[in-house]
Amino acid sequence: MIVDPWRVEGDIDYDRLIEEFGTKRLDVSIFNTPPENLPVMLRRGFFFSHRDLDVALRDGFFIYTGRGPSGKMHIGHLPPFLLAKWLQDRYGANLYIMISDDEKFVYNREIGWKEIDRYAIQNIQDIASIGFDPDRTFIFRDTEYIRNMYRLSLEIARKINLSTAKAVFGFTGESNLGLIFYTALQTVPTMFEKNVPLIPAGIDQDPYWRVQRDIAESLGYRKVSAIHNRFFPSLMGPGSKMSSSKPETVIFLDETKESLRKKIYRAFSGGQPTVELHRKLGGNPDIDVSFQLLYYMFEDDDNTIREIYDRYRSGEMLTGELKDYTIERIWEFLERLQRNRRSVNIDKYMYDGKLASEMWNRYF
Amino acid sequence: MIVDPWRVEGDIDYDRLIEEFGTKRLDVSIFNTPPENLPVMLRRGFFFSHRDLDVALRDGFFIYTGRGPSGKMHIGHLPPFLLAKWLQDRYGANLYIMISDDEKFVYNREIGWKEIDRYAIQNIQDIASIGFDPDRTFIFRDTEYIRNMYRLSLEIARKINLSTAKAVFGFTGESNLGLIFYTALQTVPTMFEKNVPLIPAGIDQDPYWRVQRDIAESLGYRKVSAIHNRFFPSLMGPGSKMSSSKPETVIFLDETKESLRKKIYRAFSGGQPTVELHRKLGGNPDIDVSFQLLYYMFEDDDNTIREIYDRYRSGEMLTGELKDYTIERIWEFLERLQRNRRSVNIDKYMYDGKLASEMWNRYF
Repeated sequence: MIVDPWRVEGDIDYDRLIEEFGTKRLDVSIFNTPPENLPVMLRRGFFFSHRDLDVALRDGFFIYTGRGPSGKMHIGHLPPFLLAKWLQDRYGANLYIMISDDEKFVYNREIGWKEIDRYAIQNIQDIASIGFDPDRTFIFRDTEYIRNMYRLSLEIARKINLSTAKAVFGFTGESNLGLIFYTALQTVPTMFEKNVPLIPAGIDQDPYWRVQRDIAESLGYRKVSAIHNRFFPSLMGPGSKMSSSKPETVIFLDETKESLRKKIYRAFSGGQPTVELHRKLGGNPDIDVSFQLLYYMFEDDDNTIREIYDRYRSGEMLTGELKDYTIERIWEFLERLQRNRRSVNIDKYMYDGKLASEMWNRYF
Repeated sequence: MIVDPWRVEGDIDYDRLIEEFGTKRLDVSIFNTPPENLPVMLRRGFFFSHRDLDVALRDGFFIYTGRGPSGKMHIGHLPPFLLAKWLQDRYGANLYIMISDDEKFVYNREIGWKEIDRYAIQNIQDIASIGFDPDRTFIFRDTEYIRNMYRLSLEIARKINLSTAKAVFGFTGESNLGLIFYTALQTVPTMFEKNVPLIPAGIDQDPYWRVQRDIAESLGYRKVSAIHNRFFPSLMGPGSKMSSSKPETVIFLDETKESLRKKIYRAFSGGQPTVELHRKLGGNPDIDVSFQLLYYMFEDDDNTIREIYDRYRSGEMLTGELKDYTIERIWEFLERLQRNRRSVNIDKYMYDGKLASEMWNRYF
């Protein structure tokens, strides 16, 4: 099992990750609200780990997350954003979304700015379609906002020496200077406000924040707190991560209902080879990709999901029925997102909204 | 002898530097003009080495130099700027002057922005007082101009890996990430134009340009050419470099005539302990600091300098007389600079002049 900010390989053992990264298991009673008020992803353990979430909730927080624009977005990218929306709605928190076009450029020595720019705009439109509060959300591209962040990035960079960077991020002699400096830049938004930065993200992003936690207080800011989601299942089955570079493994945000149907039909299933065997032996929802998607994200109703589990397990529900139901639920979600996307005004989030226009006048 | 971008120690052997850095001895016939048209610093060998100056003169060039604003400027900082002015006047070349406030911040882990900002403004005023063409000169601070340079800095950073940076710049595990990234940023202005960048600088800055020369063509730009000056003598005598951190060793640009007089009077001399001995044995102009200052910078007339040399050597001219003459020549220079400084408009060089305003609309 290899988990770092650039690779996720092998079968994921979440208990081991909590232990290895030194985080805490998430107990949703921390939100102090009946479970039925929580989004599915929290209620059913898709967010499974945290660091100092109690501190964030106690002292007040702002939310920081991001996206590296190197390809089209798929539903596996959404959980941190969906949780951010819920947190913003519930707590009235400001939300900062970094579009790390710089990181994606230096990470891939072959990619050009044209491609990065195209994906950056597309990704921002996708993210904005989620419906954040336009006066409390700031979406920014590093290459555009760099002047506002540069001084603070140097204050941070000055505190991180090469030995630390190599130990924490695994840099080698082959790592290029851009990738190395980016570790400082990614830290800047954790210091956009004086209260606690709360980061919803994959646990694989944790190394960045360990360094932040070492230096934040010496610069007059708070240590990050984080809430970590599981890796999204690949359509090809459990134990692998969705990846844009393998289109058959992912559901893009711009799928048509037809392409969605094809992908779900081809997705890994926990059913038996024939209807007869299925009726006799039952299916296995615990490894069925459609069921996982419903369970962690697309089926809000607890009774319905329990019923589906039991009916599929017993063989009463066939794989085709489960898939058809899943397609409807996902399409309901995608259709709304795609409709929002056609009318969304990204300038409100990037330049014109209350928070965005304040941010363009601040130099950190 | 240690010579790198951060340290100059020991006795300087210029022939050995030419050999070690792999540069060429400067023969001023390359300028294709009678020696009497050349400034003193060229005519008398203060600029002693070059790299591809022939290519720059043949193919056309722009000039790039800079200043790290970590203290007051002294006359030892001036040679690259004075040569830049001569080159600009003679060849009509554009001149780019980087004020590397970022480098100075990350180099000194204790310094704060307030101090850097104060020196940056002071230094820019000093530099602008030299009288460059306001429509062909762009003076910029890295922390202000970063957005225009950031993308190109990433293109450069992506091409330099950590092994190369360690080998060329001598970084260790203790080096901080800011200092490491700066090596990419300093390269950006060598790509402000498509013709040859010509850099007047101390030979100690050479390592930066060796990396530039390795990658420039792959990015569609020209390799740097450079012209190197000797280290300025310390007032305390030959074999050491002027340093702002030891005020008694340097002549600041803001000296009064009185403070200038005191410093020259205390400066290292090639004279004998008593007038009688001096008259009898003569002085040694080759190690006399006043004579060095006149020779390399402040006495333009070849007959006069020869006469001073002979008269001091023979004992006819006393140390006091030589010092008084030197004070007058330097004061003549400083007074003009200080007068210019009181009326100089730095905005013309930074924002409003023809080249400056073009540069603020260019994103590299």
